Amino acid sequence: SSSSAAGKLEEEVGRVMDQARELHESGASLLWKISNEEQSLRQKAISLESSIRRVRSSINSLISKKLLDPEFARKLEEDLQRASSILTDGEAAAFLPAEAQGRFLRMFLGPINVRASRKEVQLKVKEEYNSYRDRTAFLFLLFPLTLLILKSWIWEGCLPAFPVQLYEAWLLFLYTGLAMRENILRANGSDIRPWWIYHHYCAMLMALVSLTWEIKRQPNCAQKQRGVELFLQWAMMQGVAMLLQNRYQRQRLYTRIALGKANRMDVVWGETSGVDGQLWVLCPILFAMQGFEAYVGLLLLKTAFVGVVTEWQVICCGILLVLMAVGNFINTIQTLMTKSRF
Amino acid sequence: SSSSAAGKLEEEVGRVMDQARELHESGASLLWKISNEEQSLRQKAISLESSIRRVRSSINSLISKKLLDPEFARKLEEDLQRASSILTDGEAAAFLPAEAQGRFLRMFLGPINVRASRKEVQLKVKEEYNSYRDRTAFLFLLFPLTLLILKSWIWEGCLPAFPVQLYEAWLLFLYTGLAMRENILRANGSDIRPWWIYHHYCAMLMALVSLTWEIKRQPNCAQKQRGVELFLQWAMMQGVAMLLQNRYQRQRLYTRIALGKANRMDVVWGETSGVDGQLWVLCPILFAMQGFEAYVGLLLLKTAFVGVVTEWQVICCGILLVLMAVGNFINTIQTLMTKSRF
Ligand SMILES: CC(C)(COP(=O)(O)OP(=O)(O)OC[C@H]1O[C@@H](n2cnc3c(N)ncnc32)[C@H](O)[C@@H]1OP(=O)(O)O)[C@@H](O)C(=O)NCCC(=O)NCCS
Ligand SMILES: CC(C)(COP(=O)(O)OP(=O)(O)OC[C@H]1O[C@@H](n2cnc3c(N)ncnc32)[C@H](O)[C@@H]1OP(=O)(O)O)[C@@H](O)C(=O)NCCC(=O)NCCS
Repeated sequence: SSSSAAGKLEEEVGRVMDQARELHESGASLLWKISNEEQSLRQKAISLESSIRRVRSSINSLISKKLLDPEFARKLEEDLQRASSILTDGEAAAFLPAEAQGRFLRMFLGPINVRASRKEVQLKVKEEYNSYRDRTAFLFLLFPLTLLILKSWIWEGCLPAFPVQLYEAWLLFLYTGLAMRENILRANGSDIRPWWIYHHYCAMLMALVSLTWEIKRQPNCAQKQRGVELFLQWAMMQGVAMLLQNRYQRQRLYTRIALGKANRMDVVWGETSGVDGQLWVLCPILFAMQGFEAYVGLLLLKTAFVGVVTEWQVICCGILLVLMAVGNFINTIQTLMTKSRF
Repeated sequence: SSSSAAGKLEEEVGRVMDQARELHESGASLLWKISNEEQSLRQKAISLESSIRRVRSSINSLISKKLLDPEFARKLEEDLQRASSILTDGEAAAFLPAEAQGRFLRMFLGPINVRASRKEVQLKVKEEYNSYRDRTAFLFLLFPLTLLILKSWIWEGCLPAFPVQLYEAWLLFLYTGLAMRENILRANGSDIRPWWIYHHYCAMLMALVSLTWEIKRQPNCAQKQRGVELFLQWAMMQGVAMLLQNRYQRQRLYTRIALGKANRMDVVWGETSGVDGQLWVLCPILFAMQGFEAYVGLLLLKTAFVGVVTEWQVICCGILLVLMAVGNFINTIQTLMTKSRF
């Protein structure tokens, strides 16, 4: 009957309401409990960090006073290093006070936290970053190559503005994505050198500047478009560098995962010797690329000062390219030096 | 003595190691516990959601069979609504399966989770968004105004390319930031209409297109720069619209916080009548602005088709402006209609 159906419904609605309230309360109490336990872990982690710092400095002072056997000191240092790796790479890392997120992320995202508390998620982020780089490296080669081929086959030596600007907009989007992801990786405990991120800020700026760069038309466009052509050649070279670098870094990550879930605490020293061999093959190629990068930058500056193309954009891109080449070179050298020390 | 100092150090290092291991283990076990309890809450939340859906549909079917008193049905509906608000806005909301994050965020950030589990953090994100909009609205007025004033005072009717392009780059950066923050708000449970986000995608596209837009110089620049001038006027108008909207929405948020920590469950119906009055003052101004937006768009299209400036950029910006005006209008109307229904 109608009234019994209504009664049954009312009962059900009441039950739903009770369940919702109950759920709300267990949610609130779980959040409360989590936040308490987190806080206590956080305090312990902070105090452990300062103990490590204290012990390390007393070791150093004993060494300098020659009161400690260097061999023994080295062993102690090794243990401290291991403890500190456990702290920063282990499960407790999620409870260390987050490093302040860089200005870049705050500028775009506001005060949101991008740190993942689980190691699996952090690994997933890293793998996604690698596959993103792979996908883009491919396009990086293909896009400018197509433009340059079409230029000589169909466009009779003259690039039309629209496809070039499309490409530049894509570059801007791409570098912004890379810079964001790298900042996120850093917030998740990656050891990436700050320069590799700054390098992408420079590339973002370059893509932005190149968008405002007027693509001159006939007559004489072959000469007037010299700057754009150099820019496209540089981009292709970037694609090659990225592909090589990706291959190496993917293998490096997999080796580390295989060795122990990519926790550096298991692989502190002499970690991935199998892969590090590859580095000595990769580096000469990288150096050659960096040389080419500087060369393109200098050519751009030359075309600007000889007076063929006198726009400020050409000068600006030239300076940025030289800056990036020098920075890349210095940082690659420093990476090699750090690695060979172990 | 030296050997006792060494012994003490060794002891201390051992203690540090033990503490690090212990911390690692408590961290791991806490994460494990959290993930178990979260999972059980998540399952309860999902099953409650489906109960609500089931009860709601049986109410509807009884109504359509005329087996239920409409007055009584309305009361039941109200309760269900309240239960569902508790679920989606209460502390348990953090444990509901996250809505898939939009493509936009994934494109730039990868698979990182931007949902904050605590209500305070969500509110902080919202407040930061509001203050970001305030800061930018101010610049939005000032920047193009300065350009237009300098144009007639110093630059003799002719805008130089660089400052305009700087402004356009800033716009691009700004709209990207807004679009990201709005996507983040959405992932954190905001009811923002998708259109307001699409609107910012359109604005991003427009800023990007305008960057490739050649700023013509003498002679006759007053005529050739008509498009840019209209664009700057539109931007100023956007600044005014943003300032007004911010004032209204900030007050709305504070009213909601005052009424119950901005949980909609406490203010389901007839929520913020004090502020809603303001909406009727705000809307005519918004409509006027939207009219002006469409007018600027049509003017751009006219300059393009009459043949003064025939670049594709002008046509593209014209179309985008008309599209945005129409979309804004429709969505403002729909918002008003939804609000007046309660
Ligand atoms: C030299 C190089 C191969 C060393 O790579 P590496 O062995 O991974 O270096 P490190 O051990 O110092 O890496 C530390 C971290 O930084 C990351 N990293 C290193 N170089 C990076 C780069 N160029 N971009 C992004 N991340 C980088 C690593 O993945 C690692 O991350 P993790 O801590 O999360 O595992 C690498 O830095 C490189 O390719 N640099 C040259 C890039 C270049 O010059 N490109 C332009 C050519 S024109
Ligand atoms: C009409 C208007 C004032 C209604 O605002 P409102 O009362 O906050 O609207 P709603 O109640 O539907 O808001 C739901 C949510 O969307 C958010 N929101 C609404 N309009 C928004 C907008 N334009 N941008 C960003 N967020 C918006 C609200 O803050 C609210 O968030 P919450 O759920 O986290 O609290 C507002 O949408 C508006 O100003 N629109 C016109 C914008 C415009 O046309 N600008 C260009 C003029 S040329």
